[in-house]
Amino acid sequence: MSFPDVLKQDAALVQARLNVALANHDDVPVVQAMRYALQGGKRLRAFLVLESARLHGLAPEQAVAAAAAVEALHAYSLVHDDLPCMDDDDLRRGLPTVHVKWDEATAVLTGDALQTLAFELLCDPALGPADRRLALVAGLAKASGAEGMVLGQALDIAAETAPAPLTLPEITRLQAGKTGALICFSAEAGAILAGADPAPLRAYATALGLAFQIADDILDVEGSEATTGKRVGKDAEAGKATFVSLLGLEGAKSRAQALIDEAAAALLPYGDRASALIEAARFVISRQS
Amino acid sequence: MSFPDVLKQDAALVQARLNVALANHDDVPVVQAMRYALQGGKRLRAFLVLESARLHGLAPEQAVAAAAAVEALHAYSLVHDDLPCMDDDDLRRGLPTVHVKWDEATAVLTGDALQTLAFELLCDPALGPADRRLALVAGLAKASGAEGMVLGQALDIAAETAPAPLTLPEITRLQAGKTGALICFSAEAGAILAGADPAPLRAYATALGLAFQIADDILDVEGSEATTGKRVGKDAEAGKATFVSLLGLEGAKSRAQALIDEAAAALLPYGDRASALIEAARFVISRQS
Repeated sequence: MSFPDVLKQDAALVQARLNVALANHDDVPVVQAMRYALQGGKRLRAFLVLESARLHGLAPEQAVAAAAAVEALHAYSLVHDDLPCMDDDDLRRGLPTVHVKWDEATAVLTGDALQTLAFELLCDPALGPADRRLALVAGLAKASGAEGMVLGQALDIAAETAPAPLTLPEITRLQAGKTGALICFSAEAGAILAGADPAPLRAYATALGLAFQIADDILDVEGSEATTGKRVGKDAEAGKATFVSLLGLEGAKSRAQALIDEAAAALLPYGDRASALIEAARFVISRQS
Repeated sequence: MSFPDVLKQDAALVQARLNVALANHDDVPVVQAMRYALQGGKRLRAFLVLESARLHGLAPEQAVAAAAAVEALHAYSLVHDDLPCMDDDDLRRGLPTVHVKWDEATAVLTGDALQTLAFELLCDPALGPADRRLALVAGLAKASGAEGMVLGQALDIAAETAPAPLTLPEITRLQAGKTGALICFSAEAGAILAGADPAPLRAYATALGLAFQIADDILDVEGSEATTGKRVGKDAEAGKATFVSLLGLEGAKSRAQALIDEAAAALLPYGDRASALIEAARFVISRQS
């Protein structure tokens, strides 16, 4: 099966699991907004969970709740990051953001409930022994909180009013939190579920996460709103430092390529079985959205 | 030891555990705001965790991380509920709210990180076997999310623009989510940690949680800003239905007293060992803040 087909198949699995998770909830606006925020997207993080599980001999059913958890956490971060007091974005995945379609209070609560849902999903007995599920809870918490995504977003907000644009080490640290931490956890999740050593997947995903963000900065310059489904050119407009402003367009592209090679090299211990993960890494820097 | 002394002693234990949890975090504004939001308060929920643990023969060290988790989750909900787009409160525990002292973006992120911290704390190995810690994760998620606190807050926000004031069953459902769910989980936590039946504590805390909210509504009418540390008279001003508007001041007081009797009766199986929990219930309806 080609990589785009695997991605699509995994996305459908994860969407089904998310639908089940919300099936019995009261039909209040927050729950409608949760469903809305959980639709669409590439589901790259879910793929990483499911593929790292397959790499360790686990069936998708044994990992899908963790993949759904990661997507719920990702969706929460997008809903809150889009708020007027944060990045103030009106468009996400080609649709109005939650605070535009509903209101700010609903958007805050929707993000809050999506974060909770992520941890709830990790309690699913289908994920196996309690100690491994608990290791996922600890790993997701580390990726999500004040040492991970929240730290990255806080540094991003602080950068907007900083006297000077960020340096390369500063922006690398920012992105390691904002996007890297969850990509890293996603790739490690399959190893954690299998009780295997997550170190090779961590090395793979650390490089992948940084390449992903560099590609995002390139898309913000080269992409269009039609293909990305979100506003482009924002960073340059705001005078914010990005990997493109710091490395130049060609420099950013060759750095991303080098990181993808590094990611692939980290997976050598797995041989051919890692081909889908390597294809995913190539996809990350060639994507149009 | 008298109940106020036990409460104080437990509060100090929990504060120490929360300080440890944040000790190694980067000193960014979000982490400073987390520390700020985690200070003060009655720590009633932490007491419920620690006392229900003692009731089952567990030492405070075996439960303090769960007590800290519950206080972190409570603090997150206060920071987000105080936001301008939600209840728009300037004062909390006698101090400026987080969005007033910092800004809205920091307040959103602070609440987000406090929710994550709560789940992180439940991974503490000192809490015992993985399956019991995982049961706490599941229980906290249920109390926190779109079936618990988020649902309650969403119903509260919706009530502000509803064509008619809420009825007694509606406001009871709202409060069961907004304040009841976490109080209930706190009291059950000790039983879960000990692998015991949480049913009597659940019955106790269900009555206690409702009494707590009725007492809050009474304080909003009879209390002063000086003793409560927050703005009073808000609900009447906004024309919102409360237990006092629905039952009258005397009716609310006698309903709260009946609930406290009900809470005490639920603990009969524990005999004298439940005396601190029963004292806590009496305290809840006699408190001035």
